Amino acid sequence: MRYELFYWTGIQGRGEFIRLALEDAGADYIDVARKRGDKVIMSYLRGLQEGSLPFAPPFLKAGRLVIAQTGTILAYLGPHLGLVPGGAAAEFYAQQLQQTICDIVMEVHDTHHPIAASQYYEEQRAQARKRAQVFREERLPKFLDYFESIIERGNGRQALSRHSYVDLSLFQLISGLDYAFPNAMQRMRGRIPRLRALAERVADRPNIAAYLQSSRRIPFNEQGIFRHYTALDPAS
Amino acid sequence: MRYELFYWTGIQGRGEFIRLALEDAGADYIDVARKRGDKVIMSYLRGLQEGSLPFAPPFLKAGRLVIAQTGTILAYLGPHLGLVPGGAAAEFYAQQLQQTICDIVMEVHDTHHPIAASQYYEEQRAQARKRAQVFREERLPKFLDYFESIIERGNGRQALSRHSYVDLSLFQLISGLDYAFPNAMQRMRGRIPRLRALAERVADRPNIAAYLQSSRRIPFNEQGIFRHYTALDPAS
Repeated sequence: MRYELFYWTGIQGRGEFIRLALEDAGADYIDVARKRGDKVIMSYLRGLQEGSLPFAPPFLKAGRLVIAQTGTILAYLGPHLGLVPGGAAAEFYAQQLQQTICDIVMEVHDTHHPIAASQYYEEQRAQARKRAQVFREERLPKFLDYFESIIERGNGRQALSRHSYVDLSLFQLISGLDYAFPNAMQRMRGRIPRLRALAERVADRPNIAAYLQSSRRIPFNEQGIFRHYTALDPAS
Repeated sequence: MRYELFYWTGIQGRGEFIRLALEDAGADYIDVARKRGDKVIMSYLRGLQEGSLPFAPPFLKAGRLVIAQTGTILAYLGPHLGLVPGGAAAEFYAQQLQQTICDIVMEVHDTHHPIAASQYYEEQRAQARKRAQVFREERLPKFLDYFESIIERGNGRQALSRHSYVDLSLFQLISGLDYAFPNAMQRMRGRIPRLRALAERVADRPNIAAYLQSSRRIPFNEQGIFRHYTALDPAS
C-alpha cells in the first residue's frame, strides 16, 4: 500500500505525528503537498475529491479511504504498520493516550494564539504571555507528570510495553516542548526521567535517526505549532 | 454488559456525549459518581485502580477495560451499541467527525476560559469577550458549515447514511450552542437547515426524548462547558 499524506508544506505541525509513524515503519508514502503544493489540500477541503471530507489537514489517503484527524489516522495506521500491540485493551489505551497528546498540542498552539488563530502572534502578545505562564506553571507539569506515570505504570503490563506510535508521538511532543520552552523544560528535567529516556530511545531508532538527519525533517520554526518566543519562556 | 460511566456530577460536560449514546441504545449503565460522589473519580485519576490511567473524565469501565477520552470511548461503544454503520470506512469517518466535534467543544470552553481553566471566568472576562467574538464570527460558521456539508454530502453515501453516535453528538453540540450563543445561532439558522433537521430528529427518538425529560438530564448551567454569558453573545 502506498499511503498519501496531506499536510501543509513548510511546517512540521500535526502532520509530523503521522510522518514519524510512516518513517519509523519504513512505509511507502508520498508527502503529497511537498510534491504538488498546498493547493492539492484545498481541493480536498472544498469537497472536490472522493471520500470523506476532512475539516483540516493532516489527512491520509489509503486506497479509497480518506482519514482525517491526527488521532484517527494513527488509530488506523497503528495496526497496519505494526505500531501498536495487539488486542482491544492496548489499541484503545494507545488511542486515548494519543488523544491526550493532541490535547496538549492544542494547548501549546494556544499559548501563542490565545485569542484568534486567524491573527498574528504579535496582535495577541499580552494575552499570550498570560496564557503561556499558566501553561508553563500548571498545564505542562500536569501533562508531563501524567505521561511519566503512564510509562512507570506501563512497564510491568502488556499494553504499551512494546514500541508503539504513542512512543513516537511522545518523542515529538518532548522535542517540540524543548524547542518552544527550553527554560521550562529544563526546570521539569528531574521530574520526567522515563519520558527523557523514551525520547532518546526513539531518536536512536535507525529509521528515525535517518529521518531526523534528512531534508524531509523540516526544522522547528515560528510558523508551526511549537514556536520559540523568549517572552513566553522566561529564564525563571 | 453493565457499563460504568465516570464523570463529574453537576454538569453535562463531555460526559454528556457518552450518556446520550448509552441512553439512545438503551444500554445498561451506572453513572458512578452520581451514585457514589466525585471522589471515586479521583481514585482512578490518582492511579489507585486497575486498568489504564485516565488523564481526565469522562472515562468508561467496560468489564476490565478502562477507556478515557470522549472520542475513544465512542469509538469503542459505537460498534457495541449498534451506533455506527459497519465497515472500516464508516467507523473511521465517524471517529474523525467525533474528533472534530471534540475540537469545537474545546474551543467553546475556551471562549469563557481563554487564559486559564484554573481561574474564574470573571478573572478573564476581557480576554473572553475577544475570544468569543472570534469564535462567533469565524470559528462557529466554519465548523457548522463543515458539519452541514457533511450531512449534505453523506445523504447519498453508505458512510453515516444511518443513525450513529455522530448524530447524537451533533444534537448535543447544537443544543449546547443554542444555550450558550442564542443570538449567534439565530443568525446562523438559515445556513444550517440539515443540522437543524438532524437535531430535531434526534430529540424525537423515543429513548432520547424520555432521557431529556428525566432527572438524569442535568440542565445546562454556568459550571459546564456550554455557558451563557450575555457579554459573550451580544444581540448584534
